[in-house]
Amino acid sequence: MSYHFATRTAGLRSSAIRDLLKVTEMSDMLSLAGGLPTPDSFPLADLRREADRLLSEYGPRVVQYSATDGVVELRQWIADQYTSEFARPVAVEGEIIVTHGSQQALDLLAKVLIDPGDVVVSESPAYLGAVQALELFQPRFEVIPGDEHGMQVELLAERLAAGLRPRMVYVVPNFHNPSGATMSLARRRHLADLADQHDLLIVEDDPYGAIRFAGEPLPPIASFTDRVVYLSTFSKIVAPGFRVGWMIGPPEVMSWVARAKQAADLHTSSFAQFLLANVVQQPGWLDAQKARIVPMYRDRCVALADALEAALGDRISFHRPDGGMFLWTRFTDIPDTTALLQHALREGVAFVPGNAFTIDQVPDSKARFSYSTLSPAQLGAAVQRLARAVDAAS
Amino acid sequence: MSYHFATRTAGLRSSAIRDLLKVTEMSDMLSLAGGLPTPDSFPLADLRREADRLLSEYGPRVVQYSATDGVVELRQWIADQYTSEFARPVAVEGEIIVTHGSQQALDLLAKVLIDPGDVVVSESPAYLGAVQALELFQPRFEVIPGDEHGMQVELLAERLAAGLRPRMVYVVPNFHNPSGATMSLARRRHLADLADQHDLLIVEDDPYGAIRFAGEPLPPIASFTDRVVYLSTFSKIVAPGFRVGWMIGPPEVMSWVARAKQAADLHTSSFAQFLLANVVQQPGWLDAQKARIVPMYRDRCVALADALEAALGDRISFHRPDGGMFLWTRFTDIPDTTALLQHALREGVAFVPGNAFTIDQVPDSKARFSYSTLSPAQLGAAVQRLARAVDAAS
Repeated sequence: MSYHFATRTAGLRSSAIRDLLKVTEMSDMLSLAGGLPTPDSFPLADLRREADRLLSEYGPRVVQYSATDGVVELRQWIADQYTSEFARPVAVEGEIIVTHGSQQALDLLAKVLIDPGDVVVSESPAYLGAVQALELFQPRFEVIPGDEHGMQVELLAERLAAGLRPRMVYVVPNFHNPSGATMSLARRRHLADLADQHDLLIVEDDPYGAIRFAGEPLPPIASFTDRVVYLSTFSKIVAPGFRVGWMIGPPEVMSWVARAKQAADLHTSSFAQFLLANVVQQPGWLDAQKARIVPMYRDRCVALADALEAALGDRISFHRPDGGMFLWTRFTDIPDTTALLQHALREGVAFVPGNAFTIDQVPDSKARFSYSTLSPAQLGAAVQRLARAVDAAS
Repeated sequence: MSYHFATRTAGLRSSAIRDLLKVTEMSDMLSLAGGLPTPDSFPLADLRREADRLLSEYGPRVVQYSATDGVVELRQWIADQYTSEFARPVAVEGEIIVTHGSQQALDLLAKVLIDPGDVVVSESPAYLGAVQALELFQPRFEVIPGDEHGMQVELLAERLAAGLRPRMVYVVPNFHNPSGATMSLARRRHLADLADQHDLLIVEDDPYGAIRFAGEPLPPIASFTDRVVYLSTFSKIVAPGFRVGWMIGPPEVMSWVARAKQAADLHTSSFAQFLLANVVQQPGWLDAQKARIVPMYRDRCVALADALEAALGDRISFHRPDGGMFLWTRFTDIPDTTALLQHALREGVAFVPGNAFTIDQVPDSKARFSYSTLSPAQLGAAVQRLARAVDAAS
């Protein structure tokens, strides 16, 4: 009565975060673990009005099968957005594919790019969801450390000079998950130059770019070279439950991705695409939405950072991010945050230990705290619980 | 400036059908090619009312991240449906995963089951979407011919006795795409027995089961053995554009599938799941919907079959299906229907040549005609055009 599974299932680790989310559904738990957008940010009234309009005025095509690369109304909006951001024309046909979240983009790219043993360059710490999606296709990860200015591109340059030939270089340049770091302009240019010199393909994953509450916006790496597949999503700026993201890349790559997308699920939900296109196409809507929600994340970030400094002083260190949803920290007197987590759960607060964001998962003194879900008052209460856990653990 | 692609892209064929769909978007083309459900079948008023209710009464959770295996309200409805159909309790937890259409279920199963070179048993002719999804993972297809009573299970029994050890046996037992055949009760029982004897895993793909307009419903193979992953979808009975399907299978298999689903796209659209659950949970809704739409397909099937017999007589042969969306035909004096298609397109009518549904794609005398999209009057006009094409081709 046994079943046989593919060897690639060895690369299928469960997400520590999603496993933790099940624990944190317990009543009275205050969770700093998940990266759920604050529910206050969802434009429910706009969605309601546009859903009604679609189903009463647009007719059956909004719930019919649609094109593999995406509904043209949405691709047109995406093309317009990035023609401005990339400072070059982005075509509606051939360069854009709408995906079930940017998570799916990683799965599709891995399918068409990675043979077992191929090298994928990733930052450390790394976005766990990307590691999960890629690991299934059995790459060899070449890890380049990051600092508060993003991936240390100069280290990548050394390894390329020494002969490294990666199939993909994966980066999250804005408000990295988990590190919160934003890649500097100099490193963006350097990475683009390396891509051109060494025929690299950069995957620029940018889910958080619109959630900037400090500093000046930086141009995407895709504005400096064509050798980029750029990923983004409606998950943080509208709502994640629709699972609608997009990828923009070289037509030669995207034609393979389109075939993989067709095999994977035919196309992204037609209704969700029409609905989101109608919401974001309203004149001035995106700017107004950012003006409404960015301060929510700024206030929560300040509340969490202030509370951690007040409660833990020099027992914890971190850089305050310029945007996004995560505070990445190091405990000065706790060498293993997986042990701290057990104390924290007993006190009624959850976070994600740093080793969850590494390839080898060796316990360390780091921790990721998300400020995106709880209110400022709840964040303060969560830190009080955390401080008791730190006392118990040390 | 070149890019390198994974060796598995060699298995990424584009769908002849979807390529053809682009041609058939030309005005005045009458398409018997695609399998789009008739737009008249979509319950737009119900969807509109429930969308409004969700976005006004349910709050932000309907557009928030949700569980990888699916929204519990929808899994509960699925469990209730199949506890009756499978004549055994189906659990809400552990056995069910909601997918982005049943196409995605095939992708996830291939990921967790198939190493390059593993044997997959498939019928001939075969559902092209399944071949596409599986081929990417480089199986060796072992093809078992079908007849008007489905896969010839007795031939599979012989090959198993001779030592064949497939990783997966893929069947579409109700109103097969493209053959229209329904697997007999005896063959269903025989296949279930073989699964138990040889530790096989059967993938029972049932997108069309609810569209039965002749004959008596037969129990699913999953009611005879636990060694089945059963797939179905809302695409034909509600609407395809939401991309919501489901899979039900052994917990040991489904726990791996859940990890693959998490890596692929985190979860299926929350909003689509809540919306469809609310529509189908209305007391008596599903029976009323079937009563409304099944006659639409019956009338279209009769219209197409009658018109073909009247126009082409003994130049074409086919069995009338008991349900579904497809008429599978053989031309008695046209050996290559890919050549016929060129004449047909010039006359303004499209269909899918039979070789599109084979692994080796050698041209043959078969053709699939879909009656799901056009009205009975349009079907008659399409057959007139086809008859002119047949005259020109022979």
